[in-house]
Amino acid sequence: MTNTATPSATTPWVVGVDLGGTNVRLALYRDLLQAHAERLARPGQIMPPPAYTLMHREQVGDKRDAASVAVRLAAGIERLLADAGVSDALVPVGVGIAAMLRGFEGDVANSPNLGWRDEPFGRMLADALGPRRPVRLYNDVNAIVYGEYGYGAGVGAADVLGVFVGTGIGGGLVAEDRLIEGASNCAVEIGHVKVDLRPNAPLCGCGGRGCLEAFAGGRNLQDRLREELAAGQPSVILGLAGSVEQVTPGDLDQAAAQDDAYALAMYDDLVPKIASTLANAVFVLNPSRLILGGGMLMRMPVLRQRIIEDVPRYLTKAQIEPLSIVETQLEEDAGLLGSALLAAERLATPL
Amino acid sequence: MTNTATPSATTPWVVGVDLGGTNVRLALYRDLLQAHAERLARPGQIMPPPAYTLMHREQVGDKRDAASVAVRLAAGIERLLADAGVSDALVPVGVGIAAMLRGFEGDVANSPNLGWRDEPFGRMLADALGPRRPVRLYNDVNAIVYGEYGYGAGVGAADVLGVFVGTGIGGGLVAEDRLIEGASNCAVEIGHVKVDLRPNAPLCGCGGRGCLEAFAGGRNLQDRLREELAAGQPSVILGLAGSVEQVTPGDLDQAAAQDDAYALAMYDDLVPKIASTLANAVFVLNPSRLILGGGMLMRMPVLRQRIIEDVPRYLTKAQIEPLSIVETQLEEDAGLLGSALLAAERLATPL
Repeated sequence: MTNTATPSATTPWVVGVDLGGTNVRLALYRDLLQAHAERLARPGQIMPPPAYTLMHREQVGDKRDAASVAVRLAAGIERLLADAGVSDALVPVGVGIAAMLRGFEGDVANSPNLGWRDEPFGRMLADALGPRRPVRLYNDVNAIVYGEYGYGAGVGAADVLGVFVGTGIGGGLVAEDRLIEGASNCAVEIGHVKVDLRPNAPLCGCGGRGCLEAFAGGRNLQDRLREELAAGQPSVILGLAGSVEQVTPGDLDQAAAQDDAYALAMYDDLVPKIASTLANAVFVLNPSRLILGGGMLMRMPVLRQRIIEDVPRYLTKAQIEPLSIVETQLEEDAGLLGSALLAAERLATPL
Repeated sequence: MTNTATPSATTPWVVGVDLGGTNVRLALYRDLLQAHAERLARPGQIMPPPAYTLMHREQVGDKRDAASVAVRLAAGIERLLADAGVSDALVPVGVGIAAMLRGFEGDVANSPNLGWRDEPFGRMLADALGPRRPVRLYNDVNAIVYGEYGYGAGVGAADVLGVFVGTGIGGGLVAEDRLIEGASNCAVEIGHVKVDLRPNAPLCGCGGRGCLEAFAGGRNLQDRLREELAAGQPSVILGLAGSVEQVTPGDLDQAAAQDDAYALAMYDDLVPKIASTLANAVFVLNPSRLILGGGMLMRMPVLRQRIIEDVPRYLTKAQIEPLSIVETQLEEDAGLLGSALLAAERLATPL
């Protein structure tokens, strides 16, 4: 964004924002960099994540065009700062957003949750906030992984790959203790790795075909389940869910736990697609920690376990030896903390 | 290695080694870090790569067990230093080796060219060299990519992925101006990404099945060509090569240039496997420069061009916009320079 070219002056405050499709959460932290310096000085030790000074939870609201959301979010940030009595302070803002970003100027290439394509949301937000609030957008999973790296499932590891399966599939990477953002702020778009090269492979929300997300993203998987069950596919899933309209991927997992033939056949197809994609990323990145999480995957213990067991099958000893595959720990605060920490590190100089 | 725990004292000298299956080249550089600091101060500018003070080329020799090679290589390094009159100096040594490494202590997990598996070659070499020659092993392609990043096809880019197709397939990654080594020194083992999940997929030298290298590595591709042509497969390749025993992947490329049906069908299978693997790595790493090279690929212009054209097909605008796909520039000196530079940066403190 235009007002982030140089680090801002010293400030003890920073705001982290988690902007989802329905809710937006905003948290104000104080002295986050000092807390994080203590954290880095004790790499293997479990330490509680830094607590926010104040947190607000709001609705994204009905007017969902990028300009309207930018103006409302800016007002929400000012309300948070006013409630904390720090309106006059210089406060960097890190915004985690479920979107494929494009560059570091705040362009959102694609956000299915918000229904945006090619929106200069970061610039709109920067304009609405003014120069006393330097702001930068982060992919939500990048922010979550950075939080988990510092204070959750990544503690003790310098090379962390996190992959989260929710409505969509996203990832984040820390290499040698640094978040890797990529040349245009869209590193680890692992949901769009191609797992099916056939010309008629399923279409993905990104416009491509055969993406992992087209098979294993929560929205696409749920659509497929409902469609196949509505078409008469026999399975215990319908009994578990009550009706086709209520079927979720969680029901598929319960059915797999009961050895339902349809569920097991679907896992025989899905597990290698997901696990080989994870293993292929491990071949490229050689992390010591692979963190799995996300709303859908955390409600599917059978699938999760099968993935964790399948990943090493594709690897060699050189990749397996240093690697632990673990589950996310911090839940919903990881993204708030991660985006605040990134903003503190990159938009402010410590006091 | 045991003698590299702390950076050595200040020294103007550093040795880079390129250890192949047949030849070993050793180069002595002076003041490499100072030259590189000037290079980094002019990121976009073309500058000639730093020249070595002295270079030796030797044979690996017939006794090829790891211990024998370590002793001979140590003697070769001492000859180089003696010829340059700097035997008394403290000199860090960076060795680029065509191998999958395991950890930072010099363990070679697998080197098909040298016929090694699980050899503690780095420790053997460190023992033979003694404490005045701190030494570290690098994957050869990591070293090449680091050289190309600094002085060749990567100039001007901070995020560089290099993929080299020769006898095998390897890669290297620079992210935000740092070589990414991974948690156990085997980042970007991209040749072992799985492109075929069938249980009967072709076996790879790594012990796995369905690796990209099993299809597109020079040795495996050549074996397949010779086998299919010996079995009577019609193609212009035999006429080009003279006999089955002389067929190389280069002949396949010439046949493809002549619209040979067999060659074109093989490319229709190979190109998507290679290009989608590259694109999937781009989804993960989001580089601004993708460098293609390697002995086999550089002798196959038709294949190279088809790969370069196919990669963007799998990507979205967000990954394509910042990306240039280019060919390697420095030829055989890239690896010498890269391993010397890595050793200078990581094993020595500058004068």
